[in-house]
Amino acid sequence: MTYCVAIAVDAGLVFCSDSRTNAGIDQVSTYSKMYRFGVEGQRQFVIMSAGNLGTTQATISRIKRDIKERAATSLLTVESVSEAAEYLGGISREEQDKHASRGSGFEASFIIGGQIAGKKHRIMMVYPEGNHITSSHDTPYLQIGESKYGKPILDRILTRDLELDTCALCALVSMDSTMRSNLSVGPPIEVLVYRTDTLTLDAPLRFDEDSEFLREVKRSWDQRLKEAFRQMPRFAWAGQWDSQARLAAVNDDDRD
Amino acid sequence: MTYCVAIAVDAGLVFCSDSRTNAGIDQVSTYSKMYRFGVEGQRQFVIMSAGNLGTTQATISRIKRDIKERAATSLLTVESVSEAAEYLGGISREEQDKHASRGSGFEASFIIGGQIAGKKHRIMMVYPEGNHITSSHDTPYLQIGESKYGKPILDRILTRDLELDTCALCALVSMDSTMRSNLSVGPPIEVLVYRTDTLTLDAPLRFDEDSEFLREVKRSWDQRLKEAFRQMPRFAWAGQWDSQARLAAVNDDDRD
Repeated sequence: MTYCVAIAVDAGLVFCSDSRTNAGIDQVSTYSKMYRFGVEGQRQFVIMSAGNLGTTQATISRIKRDIKERAATSLLTVESVSEAAEYLGGISREEQDKHASRGSGFEASFIIGGQIAGKKHRIMMVYPEGNHITSSHDTPYLQIGESKYGKPILDRILTRDLELDTCALCALVSMDSTMRSNLSVGPPIEVLVYRTDTLTLDAPLRFDEDSEFLREVKRSWDQRLKEAFRQMPRFAWAGQWDSQARLAAVNDDDRD
Repeated sequence: MTYCVAIAVDAGLVFCSDSRTNAGIDQVSTYSKMYRFGVEGQRQFVIMSAGNLGTTQATISRIKRDIKERAATSLLTVESVSEAAEYLGGISREEQDKHASRGSGFEASFIIGGQIAGKKHRIMMVYPEGNHITSSHDTPYLQIGESKYGKPILDRILTRDLELDTCALCALVSMDSTMRSNLSVGPPIEVLVYRTDTLTLDAPLRFDEDSEFLREVKRSWDQRLKEAFRQMPRFAWAGQWDSQARLAAVNDDDRD
């Protein structure tokens, strides 16, 4: 399984992915699911992948080859992030179709995000069918893979005006909730931040199993969440069971 | 869709279920998914259901009929909660098998919990296949239906020594996260608390769409979760993007 999340806010983009791949619980491997493509000062793209590893690797290979061979259409020629998503979806669809006669299980989905000089920074999710959607003002994130466990925290925290480090922390907390509930999502965790209009990408930060930082995020969030829960007001309804408890206590006395 | 969660701690049992049923997003209805069976002072059972409404209703009907007709095996005769789960699973399997020739989609799952005089209070989950599992010391809860959104908070908060009102509040927070992320899970929300060794069951508390209490839980948790996130320490890594930001700012100056 996989979990990837991308966040698009005014200040820029955040990408976060795990690196665990499994074909059955006894065949677990580590593969990065995050890929960077770009030309300094002109265009930058980040792709994250989920689903069949054969399909995603073949798709990424073809994207690289198209760049290398200066194909008519490649990430160097597309004129928008949306066009890049269209291009990516077409390749993914073709790679899946090669195996269509052997049944299902070859599906893959992708997130692609980035910016082209003079255009807005965007993120897009590419479905296994090849079509794509983008994020919105109210929902400034996209997820692929094991997305449910980590969704509630994104829904509550993310707004378009947040700082990038807050968004990155939110992505990590979302990843932490997912790893806690699904063993097949796991470190190393990669985080990449793109700042609007810089048109440059650093290497992703990579946190492995022993990362003191990941442990600190985990510990810190766990502790704060528990505190938050402890601080919930005691509601009037709780009294109902207290009175029931008293009743039970009276019955206990009767037995003596 | 449905979300039901049952919690088993030393002090007793908590059951919480939504009441939304849908066959497509334009055919949404309200059905309670919580059923009580018992004899005061002797045995008490609560059943919650998820899945095909035809299967769950037929199953519950047969359980009621077996009680009424004093069948050889019924919830009045079983000698443990595990045996009750076995009995329930058998009926569910039979009801599904009636439609097996018309394909899939008739699956149902159940949670059954309660106590028989002199025995321990237990909760069991009954799979569509008819077999069942119970909760454990480390995982003192069971879920059916749309379980992923609401799982992280259960994993973090629940321990066997918690008070019942804390467990009920945790179940409601878990329900709130689920409703926020899946529209097809919705009020009225029913909550039922069973206190160990009382062998009596009150009617469930029922909170509808307009419930001030539900809104207060939602508001209160949302606010506390956001505060908890705001209080996360600023990690050293954040500096990386700050320096990148400074670099970008320098570039901006260059452009002037």
